[in-house]
Amino acid sequence: MAKDKPRRPKAETPKGFRDYFGAEVTERSAMLAKIAEVYHRYGFDALETSGVETVEALGKFLPDVDRPNEGVFAWEEDKDWLALRYDLTAPLARVYAQHRNDLPTPYRRYAMGPVWRNEKPGPGRFRQFYQCDADTVGAPSVAADAEICAMLSDVFESLGLGGDYVVKVNNRKVLNGVMEVAGVLDPSDPDKFAHERGIVLRAIDKLDRLGLDGVRQLLGEGRKDESGDFTKGAGLGAEQAEVVMGFMQARQSTGQATLQRLTELVSGSETGKAGVSELETIATLLDAQGYGPDRIEIDPAVVRGLGYYTGPVFEAELTFQIEDEKGRPRNFGSVAGGGRYDDLVKRFTGQEVPATGISIGVDRLLAALHAKGRLGQTAQGPVVVTVMDRDRMADYQTMVSELRNAGIRAEVYLGNPKNFGNQMKYADKRGSPIAIIEGGDEKERGVVQIKDLILGAKIAESATVEEWKDRPSQYEVSRGDLVAKVQEILSSQS
Amino acid sequence: MAKDKPRRPKAETPKGFRDYFGAEVTERSAMLAKIAEVYHRYGFDALETSGVETVEALGKFLPDVDRPNEGVFAWEEDKDWLALRYDLTAPLARVYAQHRNDLPTPYRRYAMGPVWRNEKPGPGRFRQFYQCDADTVGAPSVAADAEICAMLSDVFESLGLGGDYVVKVNNRKVLNGVMEVAGVLDPSDPDKFAHERGIVLRAIDKLDRLGLDGVRQLLGEGRKDESGDFTKGAGLGAEQAEVVMGFMQARQSTGQATLQRLTELVSGSETGKAGVSELETIATLLDAQGYGPDRIEIDPAVVRGLGYYTGPVFEAELTFQIEDEKGRPRNFGSVAGGGRYDDLVKRFTGQEVPATGISIGVDRLLAALHAKGRLGQTAQGPVVVTVMDRDRMADYQTMVSELRNAGIRAEVYLGNPKNFGNQMKYADKRGSPIAIIEGGDEKERGVVQIKDLILGAKIAESATVEEWKDRPSQYEVSRGDLVAKVQEILSSQS
Repeated sequence: MAKDKPRRPKAETPKGFRDYFGAEVTERSAMLAKIAEVYHRYGFDALETSGVETVEALGKFLPDVDRPNEGVFAWEEDKDWLALRYDLTAPLARVYAQHRNDLPTPYRRYAMGPVWRNEKPGPGRFRQFYQCDADTVGAPSVAADAEICAMLSDVFESLGLGGDYVVKVNNRKVLNGVMEVAGVLDPSDPDKFAHERGIVLRAIDKLDRLGLDGVRQLLGEGRKDESGDFTKGAGLGAEQAEVVMGFMQARQSTGQATLQRLTELVSGSETGKAGVSELETIATLLDAQGYGPDRIEIDPAVVRGLGYYTGPVFEAELTFQIEDEKGRPRNFGSVAGGGRYDDLVKRFTGQEVPATGISIGVDRLLAALHAKGRLGQTAQGPVVVTVMDRDRMADYQTMVSELRNAGIRAEVYLGNPKNFGNQMKYADKRGSPIAIIEGGDEKERGVVQIKDLILGAKIAESATVEEWKDRPSQYEVSRGDLVAKVQEILSSQS
Repeated sequence: MAKDKPRRPKAETPKGFRDYFGAEVTERSAMLAKIAEVYHRYGFDALETSGVETVEALGKFLPDVDRPNEGVFAWEEDKDWLALRYDLTAPLARVYAQHRNDLPTPYRRYAMGPVWRNEKPGPGRFRQFYQCDADTVGAPSVAADAEICAMLSDVFESLGLGGDYVVKVNNRKVLNGVMEVAGVLDPSDPDKFAHERGIVLRAIDKLDRLGLDGVRQLLGEGRKDESGDFTKGAGLGAEQAEVVMGFMQARQSTGQATLQRLTELVSGSETGKAGVSELETIATLLDAQGYGPDRIEIDPAVVRGLGYYTGPVFEAELTFQIEDEKGRPRNFGSVAGGGRYDDLVKRFTGQEVPATGISIGVDRLLAALHAKGRLGQTAQGPVVVTVMDRDRMADYQTMVSELRNAGIRAEVYLGNPKNFGNQMKYADKRGSPIAIIEGGDEKERGVVQIKDLILGAKIAESATVEEWKDRPSQYEVSRGDLVAKVQEILSSQS
């Protein structure tokens, strides 16, 4: 009988996880550093909690009612149930409850890092991804909300997206006022019609995807999608539905006119009036600081899907167009969202603590920066010093050492140097801008060969024979001029 | 019967985990960014794997034979066992095996991020902590090891620790040669005496703590520690033990002399000779690049505890003294270690792939930078604009907006402004350098009050009445001069 071969482990990431290489990592870091710089300038302090929390502190399930099946990764450990954090807000609640006597009030904090979701992976949908949040805890004033909006606007400016974004503001209280007018909110019994209001909220949130008719169907009896699946609606009568539809389309050409229209729509509802007044305050504050409607605007169609918002809600959209998978132009869309939520730490302490904040979709924002050509400059390979004579490794390492001391990314080829072609293939794979060659002959004559690989590739692609002659991509310089010549070529490439 | 109160969740980190606030986060980020900058300059590419791996890919237990009880956090998910990574080397092995056709060879990569250990938490010992690694995969030449040593030296220089560190190099092959001479390694049967060699290795690694006598006891019958606990030794005879002791103390005043002494000690062992020759090559390469013995030295006492090293081993020590918990001076000690290990991906592919690398102890290095006063400058609180008249929030936010546009960290007080004392207490808690005051009177006169809180605190601590009069810590300036005056005060404070 043949002896069983020992089974080798599979070299695979778990389903729904992935690896990030090179520029994917450094570009994200650079973007997060720029965002952190803005947050810091606004007086927000960094907070880093661990990836692991107790299930008890975290709350076992996500608050997003739209996706009830989203879960967490959890396991039992010494009789405690532990779990990976699914967002950065739940840990903030735990931190604030745990350290509230030592923290300043209000507490402005930012946090960035990976979160984990135990959901079905799909294309472009991973079980670990980055979040980047800023929240102000303990400030009931809408000045805190206005500040979040201004900060978000500054983040986009600092990322070079000025003119390509708009921060949209709305207020849940206005929406609740509208619900009251439409007869699906009874101020004396807030729990009544909660189910219907949830459907209304999610229907409005889907305006982009479903269009006005689709939303109207969901407000009424329900909607059959293209595949024939039926989604039950909120069951509003035609008149009720029109109130909601009117609200959704209440945006006018100026903020002042929008506020005026909203005032009419919520007429008779105290909550609605309070909401409009808060929006007015936010608009005044932002106006005074010079954030015009080209940067921050009031938009009643923004409601955010999450049930827990209680006042102002925000959403940041990128307004430039990209092509979708079928080549059709479409708006890039939402890259950040947030709002005010007032029961952050209540489950721990019993006290209501007001909070407001924003979460930036790191991956979408990175994709946006790529689409706008704001990234990619940093992704340069190293200068490669080739090895022509393996006994003279010290000579080659001295060269890279000189280059590095001049701030140039450089390395010596450390594979088997026997085949020079492999060394050039390696340089190509690394995206190297320049290769250095010093064989025995060069050594004797005190010179080095410097190959401009970028120019070489360009010439190889398109040049005529004349151009080829006129534009050499390889230079012989004396050994002492190595660093200066490399610097010259690098600056000609950029 | 009284109704049961719903039990509130405890607001606590899980046992062995902690939160990091403000400067704790930003100082670590800044340090890691500086290290990444050096790694990048050496041609290393960033790699970020997810926190979660399959248990199969990870290997269930840590390779550190010295701590067999260390475990991982693992759980079952859809019939797969998943686990949190316990270091950054195991994921590198998985990545290299998974992507080896797309990666350059040699593959230089760096990685930094949290790892998790399911071990008993203790003081200063956490179950999540940062690692910061650089490894070269697929380069058999010791030039790769020399490069790692040079890079590590450059890391310390770039962190401002020049003159305060030494990178120590040794070679496992030399040690194996010594083992051969001492009769505890039989080249024809490598498994024989493996247990004894493990004890010898760990005994040498403990020289710092146990002293020469303690090590000698562990090489022989064993050692009883202060508490009376007995650790069984390797059982070497006196003569055998002396060979090992001689090796450990083989360091001479110059690298050349040390190499000479090692050559004598391993006389007759082919492995030992190869090891000395590798050390010689490393010394030559580093010498040519100007890394003198003040930065990198050969030290036979460095063996590293891990069983899996196969060639050169490295350890970086900080040489300045700090006080221990009892106030006695002691060397700061080791902050990084690594070496060559040649079976990185063998368990996945069956092929031996040579690799060499280094891991920096992030928390210890941070502590070192603190001890040397290299940190702390960034930890400045924001300028606080106080709220004297809550109806004029727009005025105050305009002030902070102006300050921020000038690059100054600033915020408006967003708590309840009623009690001015609370606002000043808040500024104190935030470590604010300056507070701005604009009441109705100031507004009318077109001025603002600027309080230098750092100078104020200094004066309050030590000044005589005369000094108090001479050195006012509060200034009245016209509203238009706000930013300029704040800048002036901030630069006088630094």
